[in-house]
Amino acid sequence: MGAMEASLAAAEVGAAIGAGKLPRVVIIGGGFGGLAAARRLAGAAADVVLIDRRNHHVFQPLLYQVATAALSPADIAAPIRQALRDVKNCHVVLGEPRGIDLAARTVTLESGPIGYDFLVLAAGATHSYFGHDSWEASAPGLKTLEDATEIRRRILLAFEFAEYAANEELRRAALTFAIIGAGPTGVELAGAIKEIAAQSIPADFRNIDTKTTRVILFEGGSRILPAMDAASSERARRDLEAMGVEVRCDARVTDVQPEGVRVGEDFIKVRTVFWAAGVRASSLGAMLGVPLDKAGRVIVEEDLSIMGYPEVFVVGDMAFAKSAESGEQVPGVAQGALQGGRFVGELIAKVIANPGAARGAFSYNDKGTMATIGRSKAVAEIKGYKFGGYFAWLLWSLIHVASLITFRNRLAVFVSWTWSWFFFSRDARLILGDSKARKL
Amino acid sequence: MGAMEASLAAAEVGAAIGAGKLPRVVIIGGGFGGLAAARRLAGAAADVVLIDRRNHHVFQPLLYQVATAALSPADIAAPIRQALRDVKNCHVVLGEPRGIDLAARTVTLESGPIGYDFLVLAAGATHSYFGHDSWEASAPGLKTLEDATEIRRRILLAFEFAEYAANEELRRAALTFAIIGAGPTGVELAGAIKEIAAQSIPADFRNIDTKTTRVILFEGGSRILPAMDAASSERARRDLEAMGVEVRCDARVTDVQPEGVRVGEDFIKVRTVFWAAGVRASSLGAMLGVPLDKAGRVIVEEDLSIMGYPEVFVVGDMAFAKSAESGEQVPGVAQGALQGGRFVGELIAKVIANPGAARGAFSYNDKGTMATIGRSKAVAEIKGYKFGGYFAWLLWSLIHVASLITFRNRLAVFVSWTWSWFFFSRDARLILGDSKARKL
Repeated sequence: MGAMEASLAAAEVGAAIGAGKLPRVVIIGGGFGGLAAARRLAGAAADVVLIDRRNHHVFQPLLYQVATAALSPADIAAPIRQALRDVKNCHVVLGEPRGIDLAARTVTLESGPIGYDFLVLAAGATHSYFGHDSWEASAPGLKTLEDATEIRRRILLAFEFAEYAANEELRRAALTFAIIGAGPTGVELAGAIKEIAAQSIPADFRNIDTKTTRVILFEGGSRILPAMDAASSERARRDLEAMGVEVRCDARVTDVQPEGVRVGEDFIKVRTVFWAAGVRASSLGAMLGVPLDKAGRVIVEEDLSIMGYPEVFVVGDMAFAKSAESGEQVPGVAQGALQGGRFVGELIAKVIANPGAARGAFSYNDKGTMATIGRSKAVAEIKGYKFGGYFAWLLWSLIHVASLITFRNRLAVFVSWTWSWFFFSRDARLILGDSKARKL
Repeated sequence: MGAMEASLAAAEVGAAIGAGKLPRVVIIGGGFGGLAAARRLAGAAADVVLIDRRNHHVFQPLLYQVATAALSPADIAAPIRQALRDVKNCHVVLGEPRGIDLAARTVTLESGPIGYDFLVLAAGATHSYFGHDSWEASAPGLKTLEDATEIRRRILLAFEFAEYAANEELRRAALTFAIIGAGPTGVELAGAIKEIAAQSIPADFRNIDTKTTRVILFEGGSRILPAMDAASSERARRDLEAMGVEVRCDARVTDVQPEGVRVGEDFIKVRTVFWAAGVRASSLGAMLGVPLDKAGRVIVEEDLSIMGYPEVFVVGDMAFAKSAESGEQVPGVAQGALQGGRFVGELIAKVIANPGAARGAFSYNDKGTMATIGRSKAVAEIKGYKFGGYFAWLLWSLIHVASLITFRNRLAVFVSWTWSWFFFSRDARLILGDSKARKL
């Protein structure tokens, strides 16, 4: 359909989104930050344009559940158009910026520029392999629904392969999973893979005992969940080890090959490796020609704008921001993006209504940190309280169900979780992808 | 992972599935026929091996609901291993036959042969473009979950494109959908696309009125649903037209291009075309060197075996079979495959227990024919009764929910349908697929 596709010119987008009488707010990214900003601009005297390269918002905190076959992609995603259905002054554009010109105030899509009066950058982050980009093929990371279904595919294929492996060595490698990086995503993936192997699928295989599956969690630092308190880290480690996950701290992975990973002196034969070790801000930041930190984040002012460009804001994982009240760095989590997006949306609405309005400073409200480890196990730190086990898990579940973006998502996740909890099942165990699925 | 993948040799599969003391039954295909045969062989003194190129069974009658964003892939699919969990003498192999040697009694997988004592071919059918294979790129058909997500992607992208189309002509083409072939799949797709456009998404767009979407259903024959009674066809046509679908019978499509379709003298500009016109049996049949009908189906005896090869059976869409009782051709529907698979499974179990047992003849029990048209509308013919409307739709819904292969599927579909019925929503509106999704 090349000919027709190409004719979606940015000029047409520009023409379609208003004759230019109202100030135009361009938001890049339909994640937590971008959506929150757009919603706060509902009813403002502005034309809002939200650009995303995908048609859907993803609830990233539950991506690992799609990757581990507990949920379906549609359970944790919603079309951005639908999420912004009631923001009548918002236009949604499926597209990817090729360039941003801060001086000319334009964002360039594939086929041409769109001008803006205000710009909100909320394009998130991607994996960082710390200069070892070749590792990505053997150790994919988890940021999108496509990543999640690819990880799911690899997990399931490993067991298929093990069932008919030519020899014991290959079988052991196929029944070994390595996860590199022990932040929340790494911890959650490790626990979930072990649960699949030990609880969901043993009866499905004839030649292998999936309960013997090894899951190894590598962490370069001295403890897992480094963003949490030492006591929570320790509790999470104990819980993981009780499930049978091998936790290796102070273990720097120095090479990733299709046959395994090198850690110090050891080469561990492992067929399936996942990457949860590092993130890097969206490359959009680098297009701006403004100061970035070493993770590629744009360093912003206290009102989340870029110094010298008061009409340009950066929120979420793309921003290096300090909370005005505490002076601490705003963490790269959903709440950071959400609160930043709301702040910026309100600020822009205020400035549009009254150009001389005081802009204020952004303060991050830390609502707490949680990580789930497995069935009925989690750790949580909320307003100084630290706890774990069943209660933390229940709270984690409730908060995550309640935070999903549509009621339909909440219902789907609630039904799936209730079912899975009773039957130890993971029901989205599909190997999809036409060409690859046929090759074992 | 090339090196490791390749080492899954059929020799290993052979070694893993038994030392060869028991007779080996090889079943190719994990659809309705193959699963039914395997289940009837549970507990028989046989090693059963079920080979499929995918890891999941798909409930094909509801594929169109995945294609039209009403259901998620996992709602209508289940891992074949899980479906056969309790058939302890059954081994499941992910693989694709490269050859079948009836004289040597072997099936050759990518990497080597597996011998059999009994063979059941149940690999189904694929699309047939009647010699115009180049049409496939512009007019995909619907047989697999990957097909369904591709169709979903195209439907959703058409509206995204229309929202910012460069001119009115392109916009009209983007808001026009053509479905070629008016069997149940064509009718169901046409009704569902019209419902999406008219009910689910109008509020999501700013520049287009999706209610003006044209859906054209082309049928080469003189009436839609040709397998049903003329009165049912007429009722279905009226219902579709009342929804706004344009039904064109006696309309032979003579060309399919990226810009549109040619029908007789007319060239109709349409961006999105789907193919529901013809099927052809799996190409496995052609490997056998036995008589086929013109749709590539293997012509079988009254016990569903191949003449001269009493140990080889063909069931479902791959077989050209006549029902012993009525003398009529067994139709290519789920019930035909299911009943054939059961019959063959039982027959093999009987012959293994007593080689001299009478083999019997297969009779198809016609349980009826149904097609759904839209919200609260369907047509049904059951045991001589013909009816339509709300009651037919309710019955269609109940039968389809009840027929799903796992209870979890039933629950998921029931919840989704109940929700959608109340809110007119289609909640799996995800455009997935990494490289393509970024290109509008």
